[in-house]
Amino acid sequence: MSKFSFEINKKMDGLGRAGIISTPNGDIQTPAFVTVGTKATVKGITPEMLKDLGAQVALANTYHLYLEPGDEVVADAGGFPKMMNWDGPTMTDSGGFQVFSLGEAFGTGVSKVASGEDIVVSERKGYSKSNKFAHIDEEGVTFKSYINGSKHRFTPERSMEIQWNLGADMIFAFDECTSPLADHAYQKEAMDRTHRWAKRSLDRHKELDPENIQALFGVVQGGRFQDLREESARVLGAMDFDGYGIGGSFNKDDMAQAVGWVNAILPEEKPRHMLGIGEPMDIFSGVENGCDLFDCVSPTRVARHGRIYTTDGPIQIKNARFKKDWSPLEEGCECYTCRNYTRGYIHHLLRSKEMLGQTLGSIHNLYFIVKLVDDIRQSIYVDTFETFKKEFIKKYYKKPTE
Amino acid sequence: MSKFSFEINKKMDGLGRAGIISTPNGDIQTPAFVTVGTKATVKGITPEMLKDLGAQVALANTYHLYLEPGDEVVADAGGFPKMMNWDGPTMTDSGGFQVFSLGEAFGTGVSKVASGEDIVVSERKGYSKSNKFAHIDEEGVTFKSYINGSKHRFTPERSMEIQWNLGADMIFAFDECTSPLADHAYQKEAMDRTHRWAKRSLDRHKELDPENIQALFGVVQGGRFQDLREESARVLGAMDFDGYGIGGSFNKDDMAQAVGWVNAILPEEKPRHMLGIGEPMDIFSGVENGCDLFDCVSPTRVARHGRIYTTDGPIQIKNARFKKDWSPLEEGCECYTCRNYTRGYIHHLLRSKEMLGQTLGSIHNLYFIVKLVDDIRQSIYVDTFETFKKEFIKKYYKKPTE
Repeated sequence: MSKFSFEINKKMDGLGRAGIISTPNGDIQTPAFVTVGTKATVKGITPEMLKDLGAQVALANTYHLYLEPGDEVVADAGGFPKMMNWDGPTMTDSGGFQVFSLGEAFGTGVSKVASGEDIVVSERKGYSKSNKFAHIDEEGVTFKSYINGSKHRFTPERSMEIQWNLGADMIFAFDECTSPLADHAYQKEAMDRTHRWAKRSLDRHKELDPENIQALFGVVQGGRFQDLREESARVLGAMDFDGYGIGGSFNKDDMAQAVGWVNAILPEEKPRHMLGIGEPMDIFSGVENGCDLFDCVSPTRVARHGRIYTTDGPIQIKNARFKKDWSPLEEGCECYTCRNYTRGYIHHLLRSKEMLGQTLGSIHNLYFIVKLVDDIRQSIYVDTFETFKKEFIKKYYKKPTE
Repeated sequence: MSKFSFEINKKMDGLGRAGIISTPNGDIQTPAFVTVGTKATVKGITPEMLKDLGAQVALANTYHLYLEPGDEVVADAGGFPKMMNWDGPTMTDSGGFQVFSLGEAFGTGVSKVASGEDIVVSERKGYSKSNKFAHIDEEGVTFKSYINGSKHRFTPERSMEIQWNLGADMIFAFDECTSPLADHAYQKEAMDRTHRWAKRSLDRHKELDPENIQALFGVVQGGRFQDLREESARVLGAMDFDGYGIGGSFNKDDMAQAVGWVNAILPEEKPRHMLGIGEPMDIFSGVENGCDLFDCVSPTRVARHGRIYTTDGPIQIKNARFKKDWSPLEEGCECYTCRNYTRGYIHHLLRSKEMLGQTLGSIHNLYFIVKLVDDIRQSIYVDTFETFKKEFIKKYYKKPTE
């Protein structure tokens, strides 16, 4: 008997909703931002800090933990949540996104960033096969380790076994994550394969976990094509998943639309996770189009490089103008960093390459984005979503970001 | 009127003692280990963590803060303690050690490590002038920045002005720190100059700080020569300092002896700081030879590279044998790290180059060494110092360290 459940407490006009996901390790008020701890650690942040900044749930990356320290080592530790001393709800992704984004499937024009915190597939880089390798066949994918180039193989069954070892409350079916540049024919082929892999993931999951201790989410694909997205939602929606991920590397403009197509079809009573998305505008779009969960490495990654979120838009704290600025990162912010430190100090720490600067910036950015989603949720309950969205976006995007 | 005072509460046979230093920002039970936050941050450690691990006092490096972000920026922030949000007692060093250890004065055979956390003058490196530059004259020292090679000049007056800007409770007179390889003639010349600089430091300090808000410590030099050490203790002991630092790069074997010569002469009623020392054996020697304060970057620096202190001696946590070791770093240790994490997890974090591994290792090592000095102090009060020392050292040094 699964201890996993999802309850919708409030619906917006359209697809949006607020509710509660229950897991064996606690509840998640949705919509929620999921903090990313790639290698069983949110970089530079203790679990106490994570709790204190309001995080409800932590996601680790299957690809990374499989490679280092290895899923059997993590199993030996009692799972990654116990290993990292996080006692709240947890997720792992399928490993598919990293395998493909670090492999052959991606090309130019891809703006989404691989959840592997250190590898970026950016728009500026051309399509390159150098040091990349991912060979897809019907059974699975053979790929090279980003660490040492060694060869590995994931199949849907293997992904389930690895995620069972990693021990999260919520896990994802193994999927092929295609490039947004792929044409309709390839997207269709990949999507059909992902559906076959979804079935195989479900079957292996039931063998490994007959009591359904882990909730399994299917991952909808189909790229930017409406017919494929809708087909994927129909096919996967008919399968016995506990929830759904919406995957794929979108071009920014397609995102809200594609999510709307999908969520209009997916079973309403199951939670939906918009994978790898954390830009405020996209979160608003995702919520009003029926998504319940969001995860993204951006808040911590950009913080480590000095990009700090404020309600007036991001600032680059390493800029000279902050050298003697003894106000908090954002006036009125209640995060640990803003309660105790100044812009000038964090400017100094980051310019001096001091770890604590990365930690303090990450705390602030995570607090900011977690609170944004908390505020969005609250606005749904009190019927002020539209106003809240309009005001937030007007302020946040009023000037070009630096 | 200085708020600074020192009270001796218990004397051992010989020179050792336990007491209390009072500062405007709180008391320090002595003997005490002083944690080092070179650039106004103990690397990767928040002030709350520092309090929690038992730290009583934090030292920042004048040389580093002068270069980055600059002492006037720090003054603008209200001093480095306020800047880093540390509300306990604080110290800054004179800047002398870094200027000389990164300059021309040091040669081979030097085992002490520069307090600048990133630069090591090690025995393995030969004497080299490459990228090093420090020109000494009667007035002061001209030196190159370790960051960008730009030229700078320190004089005793300048060191006082910078330390006034940095705003610690306890500061040090500007001294020339010689190589332990220097001969008697050069040590004598440098020591005499250090004495003249001590007088100039005192004079400038009195001008800047007529109310003696900052306590000024003179720094005894003289290398490994008994006559010079004793002369330095006599000359400086007769000056109006609030306390004394014992400086210089010793060869390991000279250390206890040299400290004994000095402390037999220095005025008993003033606290003595053994500069840059943190090895357990040396702390025991320092305490029984009359030292009250110790500081060292080693606990955090070695932790960042996986060297973890235990009462059975240091271990290298990145070794393969710890991969699946789910016990704490040290059984029974009450530090935050040992209460919450395992050897296997910290092994994973450090092998994966995750910041949190450096933070958790540093917390443990600092706790270990702070507690060691706390336990030494306690043993003085209850007359068990000799037994405690013998048992600790037997266990800690029983096998060759890795």
